[in-house]
Amino acid sequence: MFRTFMGPVEDTGHEVFLRPETAQGIFVNFQNVLNSSRKKLPFGIGQIGKAFRNEITPGNFTFRTREFEQMEVEFFVKPGTDEEWLQSWVEERFNWYVSYGIRRDNLRLRRHDPDELAHYAKDTYDIEYRFPWGWGELEGIADRTDFDLQRHAEASGEDLTYFDEEDRERYLPYVIEPSGGVDRATLAFWLDSYDEEPDGETVRVVSHLHRKLAPVTVAVLPLSRNARLAPTARNVHNLLRRHFSTQFDDAQSVGRRYRRQDEIGTPYCVTVDFDTLDDHQVTIRDRDTMNQVRVSIAELVYILQDKVEHGW
Amino acid sequence: MFRTFMGPVEDTGHEVFLRPETAQGIFVNFQNVLNSSRKKLPFGIGQIGKAFRNEITPGNFTFRTREFEQMEVEFFVKPGTDEEWLQSWVEERFNWYVSYGIRRDNLRLRRHDPDELAHYAKDTYDIEYRFPWGWGELEGIADRTDFDLQRHAEASGEDLTYFDEEDRERYLPYVIEPSGGVDRATLAFWLDSYDEEPDGETVRVVSHLHRKLAPVTVAVLPLSRNARLAPTARNVHNLLRRHFSTQFDDAQSVGRRYRRQDEIGTPYCVTVDFDTLDDHQVTIRDRDTMNQVRVSIAELVYILQDKVEHGW
Repeated sequence: MFRTFMGPVEDTGHEVFLRPETAQGIFVNFQNVLNSSRKKLPFGIGQIGKAFRNEITPGNFTFRTREFEQMEVEFFVKPGTDEEWLQSWVEERFNWYVSYGIRRDNLRLRRHDPDELAHYAKDTYDIEYRFPWGWGELEGIADRTDFDLQRHAEASGEDLTYFDEEDRERYLPYVIEPSGGVDRATLAFWLDSYDEEPDGETVRVVSHLHRKLAPVTVAVLPLSRNARLAPTARNVHNLLRRHFSTQFDDAQSVGRRYRRQDEIGTPYCVTVDFDTLDDHQVTIRDRDTMNQVRVSIAELVYILQDKVEHGW
Repeated sequence: MFRTFMGPVEDTGHEVFLRPETAQGIFVNFQNVLNSSRKKLPFGIGQIGKAFRNEITPGNFTFRTREFEQMEVEFFVKPGTDEEWLQSWVEERFNWYVSYGIRRDNLRLRRHDPDELAHYAKDTYDIEYRFPWGWGELEGIADRTDFDLQRHAEASGEDLTYFDEEDRERYLPYVIEPSGGVDRATLAFWLDSYDEEPDGETVRVVSHLHRKLAPVTVAVLPLSRNARLAPTARNVHNLLRRHFSTQFDDAQSVGRRYRRQDEIGTPYCVTVDFDTLDDHQVTIRDRDTMNQVRVSIAELVYILQDKVEHGW
């Protein structure tokens, strides 16, 4: 862990550590969230934020870094239902990676051996991705039982038990924790979608990133940098930027600009040409199939929203 | 600043510090953003993130904390246009606080005296809020000139100059920096909207938080906890939660539940009563005026979206 000191004096009495996981903040707030949100079990508290680990061997791009973004849910359940909820979360989380485009073949579930389990865990599954350097963890889903709430109750003297109105009993909830690395998931989404496709004598470098993950959703490309096309192209861009993450690009040939957008995974390119000035139609080009359709500007936002929602 | 050590050895060779501002990351990325986004001057790079300062006297709620959330824009302009852009940003940022509900009387602009300016700044304005303990800074807007890019260019040996195609000249951009504390702004929004209104023999505690800032936008309140009302009330809640931040509350009297929502600043309460079962209408109640209108469930989402956009 990273050790530092609070206040001007650097002695052990003022020692603090950067948090190595975001989880504990959720347990500290459990009672507060329960009181103010009036939730009934089962329910979860989610958090995303920075965590810090003083790794000796960072590397493999952003796979292992000393400062990283963690996403965690602490899902509170009735003891005895925890094993079922663990299975349900494992399935849910595995399918999440698949639903955003990672190939099943490149994912696997690995259950921890009993002697490998962390001291707080009754059972744990890792979701692993086949990185170019081998299998690596994306996310762990652990049955933490009531270990954390128990410890926090002891340390604070607070009563953290929950009264179950339906079953008329009082107990300390168990916790199922899906805990993933945002940077690792991002890296896996990029790696899994990267492709080099033969294209005549050259290759087309293309990222087939899921359309909802692509940093740019729509690129507006006037056919050429021309004073007659520019105002219409700008208008189309202004129309789209209110609804989508967009780029405007009028440099170089349109073929080169398609390639540039392919490489960063932009799912849709909208081309404005000289016919547009007369018929008020533009061409939408799909990154994956390279198919093109001509649509009216009036319907453009609606059609793109539909494509982003349901695919090409 | 917070001092810590990278790696297992705690000596000055491995010393690192937690960042006291987010700005420098933007300057480090300036060339990269310029190349990949193909922007022309003037343009800005915005960032929000944690910053850390080892304050000796934290306090006044979340006004001064050792870990805080900072929001910054580095806005790159042509030298010579910087003074005009500084004025424009000062106005823009001042009006932002006003547009989200802070009273003009409780805001003031304070220009730094020449002997008070930071070493990097040519001119700086603070936007201050009248906190209960006196005036305090919300945000600073500084003309940082080319100080940072100059220093980064020197240290890295990189050429960070920009070629201005229109004016056919090459220069190091100047920077206007609006830099605000997210926690401080949040605190000011809450303080300025807090009210205790006489209400018969008691007081109504209400937060008039701007409808776009309120943590809960709509609360769904069945008139009473009743088996006949529950399914319809749940349906209304399921309808609204897809569009708004919502709460469902069926505990205690509806009067008490209105007060609870008033206190956390929920702008709209939707009440489901026995007439709803027949006429498929619900009552929307406005937090500020306490006016009520009855509308059909079919139009509810549309009407609430309109109110959130334009006010009651």
